[in-house]
Amino acid sequence: MANEIKTSVRTAVAGVGGYAGGELARLLLHHPRLAAAQPLFLGRVADEATTGRVPLESLHPQLALGGGVAQPEVVSFSWEKVQDAGIETVFLALPHETSREWAPEWLERGIKVIDLSGAWRLHQAANSAVYKLTDANEALAQSLQQEAVFGCPELHREEIANARLVANPGCYSTSIILALAPLLRAGIVDVDHGIICDAKSGVSGAGKAATAKTHFMYAADNLSAYAVFGHRHTGELLEQLGLTADQIQFTPHLLPIPRGILSTIYLRLKDSMKPEEVESVLRSFYASSPMVRIHKTPGLPQIQHIVRTNYCDIGFELAKDGKRLVLVSCLDNLLKGAAGQAVQNLNVMCGWKEEEGLL
Amino acid sequence: MANEIKTSVRTAVAGVGGYAGGELARLLLHHPRLAAAQPLFLGRVADEATTGRVPLESLHPQLALGGGVAQPEVVSFSWEKVQDAGIETVFLALPHETSREWAPEWLERGIKVIDLSGAWRLHQAANSAVYKLTDANEALAQSLQQEAVFGCPELHREEIANARLVANPGCYSTSIILALAPLLRAGIVDVDHGIICDAKSGVSGAGKAATAKTHFMYAADNLSAYAVFGHRHTGELLEQLGLTADQIQFTPHLLPIPRGILSTIYLRLKDSMKPEEVESVLRSFYASSPMVRIHKTPGLPQIQHIVRTNYCDIGFELAKDGKRLVLVSCLDNLLKGAAGQAVQNLNVMCGWKEEEGLL
Amino acid sequence: MANEIKTSVRTAVAGVGGYAGGELARLLLHHPRLAAAQPLFLGRVADEATTGRVPLESLHPQLALGGGVAQPEVVSFSWEKVQDAGIETVFLALPHETSREWAPEWLERGIKVIDLSGAWRLHQAANSAVYKLTDANEALAQSLQQEAVFGCPELHREEIANARLVANPGCYSTSIILALAPLLRAGIVDVDHGIICDAKSGVSGAGKAATAKTHFMYAADNLSAYAVFGHRHTGELLEQLGLTADQIQFTPHLLPIPRGILSTIYLRLKDSMKPEEVESVLRSFYASSPMVRIHKTPGLPQIQHIVRTNYCDIGFELAKDGKRLVLVSCLDNLLKGAAGQAVQNLNVMCGWKEEEGLL
Amino acid sequence: MANEIKTSVRTAVAGVGGYAGGELARLLLHHPRLAAAQPLFLGRVADEATTGRVPLESLHPQLALGGGVAQPEVVSFSWEKVQDAGIETVFLALPHETSREWAPEWLERGIKVIDLSGAWRLHQAANSAVYKLTDANEALAQSLQQEAVFGCPELHREEIANARLVANPGCYSTSIILALAPLLRAGIVDVDHGIICDAKSGVSGAGKAATAKTHFMYAADNLSAYAVFGHRHTGELLEQLGLTADQIQFTPHLLPIPRGILSTIYLRLKDSMKPEEVESVLRSFYASSPMVRIHKTPGLPQIQHIVRTNYCDIGFELAKDGKRLVLVSCLDNLLKGAAGQAVQNLNVMCGWKEEEGLL
Repeated sequence: MANEIKTSVRTAVAGVGGYAGGELARLLLHHPRLAAAQPLFLGRVADEATTGRVPLESLHPQLALGGGVAQPEVVSFSWEKVQDAGIETVFLALPHETSREWAPEWLERGIKVIDLSGAWRLHQAANSAVYKLTDANEALAQSLQQEAVFGCPELHREEIANARLVANPGCYSTSIILALAPLLRAGIVDVDHGIICDAKSGVSGAGKAATAKTHFMYAADNLSAYAVFGHRHTGELLEQLGLTADQIQFTPHLLPIPRGILSTIYLRLKDSMKPEEVESVLRSFYASSPMVRIHKTPGLPQIQHIVRTNYCDIGFELAKDGKRLVLVSCLDNLLKGAAGQAVQNLNVMCGWKEEEGLL
Repeated sequence: MANEIKTSVRTAVAGVGGYAGGELARLLLHHPRLAAAQPLFLGRVADEATTGRVPLESLHPQLALGGGVAQPEVVSFSWEKVQDAGIETVFLALPHETSREWAPEWLERGIKVIDLSGAWRLHQAANSAVYKLTDANEALAQSLQQEAVFGCPELHREEIANARLVANPGCYSTSIILALAPLLRAGIVDVDHGIICDAKSGVSGAGKAATAKTHFMYAADNLSAYAVFGHRHTGELLEQLGLTADQIQFTPHLLPIPRGILSTIYLRLKDSMKPEEVESVLRSFYASSPMVRIHKTPGLPQIQHIVRTNYCDIGFELAKDGKRLVLVSCLDNLLKGAAGQAVQNLNVMCGWKEEEGLL
Repeated sequence: MANEIKTSVRTAVAGVGGYAGGELARLLLHHPRLAAAQPLFLGRVADEATTGRVPLESLHPQLALGGGVAQPEVVSFSWEKVQDAGIETVFLALPHETSREWAPEWLERGIKVIDLSGAWRLHQAANSAVYKLTDANEALAQSLQQEAVFGCPELHREEIANARLVANPGCYSTSIILALAPLLRAGIVDVDHGIICDAKSGVSGAGKAATAKTHFMYAADNLSAYAVFGHRHTGELLEQLGLTADQIQFTPHLLPIPRGILSTIYLRLKDSMKPEEVESVLRSFYASSPMVRIHKTPGLPQIQHIVRTNYCDIGFELAKDGKRLVLVSCLDNLLKGAAGQAVQNLNVMCGWKEEEGLL
Repeated sequence: MANEIKTSVRTAVAGVGGYAGGELARLLLHHPRLAAAQPLFLGRVADEATTGRVPLESLHPQLALGGGVAQPEVVSFSWEKVQDAGIETVFLALPHETSREWAPEWLERGIKVIDLSGAWRLHQAANSAVYKLTDANEALAQSLQQEAVFGCPELHREEIANARLVANPGCYSTSIILALAPLLRAGIVDVDHGIICDAKSGVSGAGKAATAKTHFMYAADNLSAYAVFGHRHTGELLEQLGLTADQIQFTPHLLPIPRGILSTIYLRLKDSMKPEEVESVLRSFYASSPMVRIHKTPGLPQIQHIVRTNYCDIGFELAKDGKRLVLVSCLDNLLKGAAGQAVQNLNVMCGWKEEEGLL
């Protein structure tokens, strides 16, 4: 491999104020490889105009350090600060429009980018149309869109290791792709029958903005389906799984919990199989993947097993006919579905153990 | 119609201590037709052995009356008390084994039975095998099983009006049957493609027994699938919808909320249709059903719309291909899924307005 | 009594879009005295500019009627509509500034006002300063402020029966006042030692506006104290209980639940008493109050006993010294703490049974 | 100091199946000092009688390791296994009766004990009577009770460093003691006026047993006070704070959340002080305590700041009179209130950094 293994790396987080940004800050601050190199936290700190810096705890009180030690700070952005800090890799935890505009600049300065938005995840223009992106330099953007690696280490470990621009996957997509990829690649799924993904996510997936739908009174003690036939993550499913739009159908629901996704996936196998054969396909595929856990059938994962971890847990039950299969896939949308997977990508890019700082 | 309309009726509730029993008590105590005839509440009151009676509020503190008035009481069972009270209709909110054993006795005494358990819901032996019932008088039990009317007023209003034994439907079943029946009866569903019902229920559906799965720490902030391919309500779906076991598939999930069911149902239409045509099928079917509400497509119901009501809310979205349909059906498992539907059945049996005491 | 008993009354609700407004609509639509006289719902319906009317269900989907019947509507305000509808009593469920400005106009037209805001609750200028009210006609406003009756029927039944302007109490205040009033009036409390009220409220108390503090991610799985030493309801406590600011202290907390208030109140009795003596003081005081329930000591009320009811439940424990007393008082902030109490006031004003339409 | 600093230590956890046991397992498995010495997990593994061992994940699925590596195991207890593993320190996460009986045996074998139960926390017989302990060797038990060190590192760091038997404090007690100790030691509190502690805890504090009170339907959307004037942790408050029973009063409440305690504490200062003076007393006291965070007044901590951390957060507001003080103290009952504090004690006993493995 081209990469030599680094002992550490200088990182920055842009957009540290959101939920994924906060989790990134927590993970990076306690990552054993980064102990000597505190990340540079970049945010909107307009309210502290004179100093251009606020303590991280003012955005995320849970991240304050005890015992009177100095608190990590969030500083207003400047290229000068980035250069002085010797940043080698940046995490962009920003709206996709901002990432689309800004990522090329970081790359141009020789800084690798791990982007948590949807800006660079899709390779086909038809699929990415949903993001309504307008690019100043369209040719460059198209070229980067082709170059960007979909940051799912379980599927693209090698490409990530050598990537300049990693597009961290969507939370729903990760849960569905990891469950389906082994079976699809094994060629055992009757894709023409159609695959149905009934997915449920906690409220942090809706972001930090206070809206009618993130109001406690709307979400609590409730469950609602939304974006039926129209969720933006659909494109990732099609491209990563090699399916057409009439072969897979995805319905997200809003769960009355802070974090966690559970996807219940319905499909038919081409030929009748035994449960242990299906389990074997899954286990073989993830034999070297420390962040995926396969349940012994008919055991099924639950959200409480994976909340606050970077694991994706997968289980299934097979009908007596040996054909109708129900997969259940769970992950924490802020970790394996966002910040945790981003750090996992950093580990892969640096040649470190994939799970480092994530257990 | 044979029934003349009664001004009131003497009712009893056996098994008032559970969640459905408590809701029944609440509904009956405030039912305008029963104001002059307080129900007889029967329970296990062994802890008050000397008197054989306890105040209802000791089982359900929320049902206490204020202002120093006399509290409703729960009394230990005796046929003498039942006779003295002139009971005409009894609600059995008991385990199915108990109902199976006990219902024939009530009927023999000329008392109509509305049974909330699964004991009498299924007409085919193969489907009811799941309940492992052993009957003292097998011939009588078989005969009653055939006679029993499935207590879904929207489908069997006439039979209920004339029934002696009403088998109140399961909570999951009600939500799925009410969504699917209009489309199946209209003959527009491609049943051989298979129908998938991904259902989610609040914890009260699991009953009052304190178990590992009803522990707050298990259910809260969690979601889990269970009984995949094997839930007891499946038989009701097959019989009421006229489907075979390979035509419909039902996966229940445990939601971290007290009450409410949301079922997301996936099917294909035989021929491409317009959304307004599908909506019209639903609206026509329920034109005279006060307890069903159809959402204007693409609007979808949510659990918070129906909690603490006796409504079943149904909505849907149709894919652009005009064939792939996603139905969403919601109800309160303790009301339209249990006690509320039982009172609705009482109303039908008495010739009263179906929604009386339920709004 | 001057009032003759009306068989019905024409009511209007201004501000039907909020949580209290929605509960008011639900209560009034099913109030047995108002069956023949549907309330006039007034709201901001700017988005339906051409018609000036929207179905109530578009604001509160849970209030839709089933069975294809006509839906209640919300209309944009005009005095013409108010006059045409023959409105006799209006509920104002609006911000206090709006109520302060608007209530005089309704009164001038001979329409009684039940105001749910804090605009008219306080008689002393020093206490009402917290609302920062500016009145066009200051003299009239001052006069009305004196005339307004604090709408707590358990304390002011007679005055409410004859009132033109009823100031519906705050939710926290109601829970604390109802617990303390009997003991203070009996003269048994050592008020100079100081009374401490540690109160906890569900999120609906914070209103429908989407803010950082009503975001699900802020409130869920959390508890926080706020407005220590500075909550606006303090003035109501002082005036209604006849205490000075150093005699009572009140700390509200935000509970991770939709509805319900529990206040834990700490005080010392002047002289050592027996628990049954204290209980007797409470029971006597509320002997004719159907919406207050006293728990038999040492039983204590809980939020789940009162949610979705109009009851205020009160219980207590007395230390072995017979002096240190802990009172616990619970109510539903949207019912006994807002819309339910407002309807209770309507009942009193009309000479109806106080609990009519509220059980 | 007598202790030399060890590079690692061999630990065992007895009672790994409970909530605190599970958190202990998680912390110890990832503790940097214990990487080369996996703890010995002891539990009831009767269901695996032939092997006497089950994978840890069968008790705590969230603790499974991914990537096909060997899973940690829980083994049935034997002194032989303890000896073979060379255990130096054991954590007892067991009922207090079991700890009382068993701790002497471990000590006798030269193994240090960190006990998470209430068995050894109290030095005065009158206070410990609440645990109704019966000791086989009463003299030995009394002697150990005197010897045991109350495991609150912020108050007893030195004694813990040299202790054989550490009695890990109660969860409620820790939150209250840490808030009050600095002020009481500074002599600024009017203790005779009385201190009131209104404490609220998540459901995990009630333990893993499925009971009526841990049922989801009891705890969810609810709040209830319990054990008023009679909670077992009261003795710890009296002994550690040097107060008499009429000087402090403690009311616990059950919160509808999985984890976290918030204590609201009411007291009067002897003399009027400025807020910054009070803050200074707190900050000085905890200047060298990495696991306590003091909020800048009038900022107050919330449960979401400390959940899943080992921090105790403390804040306060002072009335304008400079005397009436409201303290708010928060911690995670399973971490700083149990397993985290136990590991903190291990760190102190081994001479490691107090926060090692806890950030």
